[in-house]
Amino acid sequence: MDIIYSEDHRLRASKTELYGGELLPPFECPERMDYILAAIRDRGLGTIHSPKDFGREAITAIHDEGFVTFIETCWQEWQDAGFKGEAIASAWPSRSMPSTRIPNFIDGKIGYYTLASETSISAGTAEAAYTSAQVALTGAEQISQGSQQRIFSLCRPPGHHASKDQYGGYCFYNNAAITAQYMRDQGAAKIAILDVDFHHGNGTQAIFYDRDDVLFLSIHGDPADAFPYFLGHEDEKGEGKGMGYNFNYPLAPKTPYSTWALALADALNQISTYGADALIVSFGADTFEYDPISFFKLTSNDFIDMGRKIATLHLPTLTVMEGGYAVEEVGTNTVNFLLGLEGSS
Amino acid sequence: MDIIYSEDHRLRASKTELYGGELLPPFECPERMDYILAAIRDRGLGTIHSPKDFGREAITAIHDEGFVTFIETCWQEWQDAGFKGEAIASAWPSRSMPSTRIPNFIDGKIGYYTLASETSISAGTAEAAYTSAQVALTGAEQISQGSQQRIFSLCRPPGHHASKDQYGGYCFYNNAAITAQYMRDQGAAKIAILDVDFHHGNGTQAIFYDRDDVLFLSIHGDPADAFPYFLGHEDEKGEGKGMGYNFNYPLAPKTPYSTWALALADALNQISTYGADALIVSFGADTFEYDPISFFKLTSNDFIDMGRKIATLHLPTLTVMEGGYAVEEVGTNTVNFLLGLEGSS
Repeated sequence: MDIIYSEDHRLRASKTELYGGELLPPFECPERMDYILAAIRDRGLGTIHSPKDFGREAITAIHDEGFVTFIETCWQEWQDAGFKGEAIASAWPSRSMPSTRIPNFIDGKIGYYTLASETSISAGTAEAAYTSAQVALTGAEQISQGSQQRIFSLCRPPGHHASKDQYGGYCFYNNAAITAQYMRDQGAAKIAILDVDFHHGNGTQAIFYDRDDVLFLSIHGDPADAFPYFLGHEDEKGEGKGMGYNFNYPLAPKTPYSTWALALADALNQISTYGADALIVSFGADTFEYDPISFFKLTSNDFIDMGRKIATLHLPTLTVMEGGYAVEEVGTNTVNFLLGLEGSS
Repeated sequence: MDIIYSEDHRLRASKTELYGGELLPPFECPERMDYILAAIRDRGLGTIHSPKDFGREAITAIHDEGFVTFIETCWQEWQDAGFKGEAIASAWPSRSMPSTRIPNFIDGKIGYYTLASETSISAGTAEAAYTSAQVALTGAEQISQGSQQRIFSLCRPPGHHASKDQYGGYCFYNNAAITAQYMRDQGAAKIAILDVDFHHGNGTQAIFYDRDDVLFLSIHGDPADAFPYFLGHEDEKGEGKGMGYNFNYPLAPKTPYSTWALALADALNQISTYGADALIVSFGADTFEYDPISFFKLTSNDFIDMGRKIATLHLPTLTVMEGGYAVEEVGTNTVNFLLGLEGSS
């Protein structure tokens, strides 16, 4: 399986994450990629390629122009305001302050464009997010052209929490959504996005919620107990033309693979019924039993089976990297999944 | 002028405020009260009395029962979850995650009940907030009984940002709103709340937005440039029965008192026209020219004139303390206002 990857992800190296009332070194760190690269090489997964550049317009095909400009300018504006820490939102359009006007001052503007404030913006964030989207798009091009049946876009930062105009949950641009739109624009009639990251893919859901040309399915920690808390319930099924094209499988704390796999089986049935031209997998290794911020109980071997089961769809499949924070095991688990998907393990 | 005050405010002594991407010692600190108490004594403002206890039901007359329970239990649940810092929200029902279901897990529940995450919850916060509301209510009782024409409820923590079910902006229970409701329940037909704190009184506005029995007026930093950013625009005039009973005067950075006073004159006209039985002033000293987090240019002497002008309404007046973070001057500026209001200066 070919892998798309860029060293530019290292530009995303923020020092602080708001977690449990403290500012800690982020769980979503550059070292995650080193372990995945090592496992790719150790186990001979495939050749690593650099991304092409599909331009900013491939990103604004999904994301709001003002939002992309905000991502590009936030760090400079934050520094210009004299703030000393990394850029973190502390006020937002809350349930009791529902204004949709965008403030001028960066401390307010950042709240408008943020959906969760654990994630800081720092020097290089915009550049890394841009390249991460290009890594995803380069994989998508291979799938669209039919030159490959399986591609792994080793994206960092991840993307599935980002909505059309909000970042958060370590995500800035929604790589899966951007590639789905790209594949549609290249002629695919129907795309399915299967999100197997531990966390609900709220951004991807929100982006395609009123569309029937992109089926979205997510298996994740119940939002009653897990981030992002405010989206991902089973009764969210789409709206308008999109009604019936959104499937959520929220699962309880300590869910083992045997239960998780039942949700997967249903999701795969839905994808088959839908008749997608191609599949995008938002893959996170944070369903792993020892992930520090998640609560499922998958073992390393379970990831092989997960890949094999998804392979039974016999669809051209682009895998984009999302989360996974048990850093030393993230390589093994990710490559286990990919080898299972390829039928090589 | 009699002053109501309790030492219990010292129970609110959080160590961290999320500001500019750092966790700093809070601007809203216990020492603020020491400077106000010193100025009260130095200048012989009046006698300091302890609050009575009007019970939890005086608070739930304004605030949602689930919210009050959350304030009471948050710190314990946060500690039980194993988090090491003070309780700070990092995810919330954002524009793109609009679920109104309340999560089970405290890290999600806190986001549901928060409107801004600069404010942490720590040991003693609930108790101090409870007592602060009783300090306000004790002043309101004196006004309602007609035994005093002027009372100063030296509340801490402040209240005007708190909505019926959200805390933030250093506020937990909305002292001004609780006393307005109390006065109404004691027989007053119409109450006016004039908010002269630098920041928009978003919580008070939201609580009374659909009511015509409580007129709300706020003079504050334009939300385009100042916290709380997402409420306080001039065109927010009320809804339903409350249409026409909400007045916002957003003012630009560097506004001097001469301009500020024009807004005050209009607000006083509106209050006169309304025909209120009593006035509640949400007083903050953060309009002061050297306030560290605000941008108006009022001098210490301007606070005397502000008090005198409000006194021309000849209404029974309860002043409840809100913000003011130029700690060493907060006493002088607050007592200047109160002496002007009393006609003693």
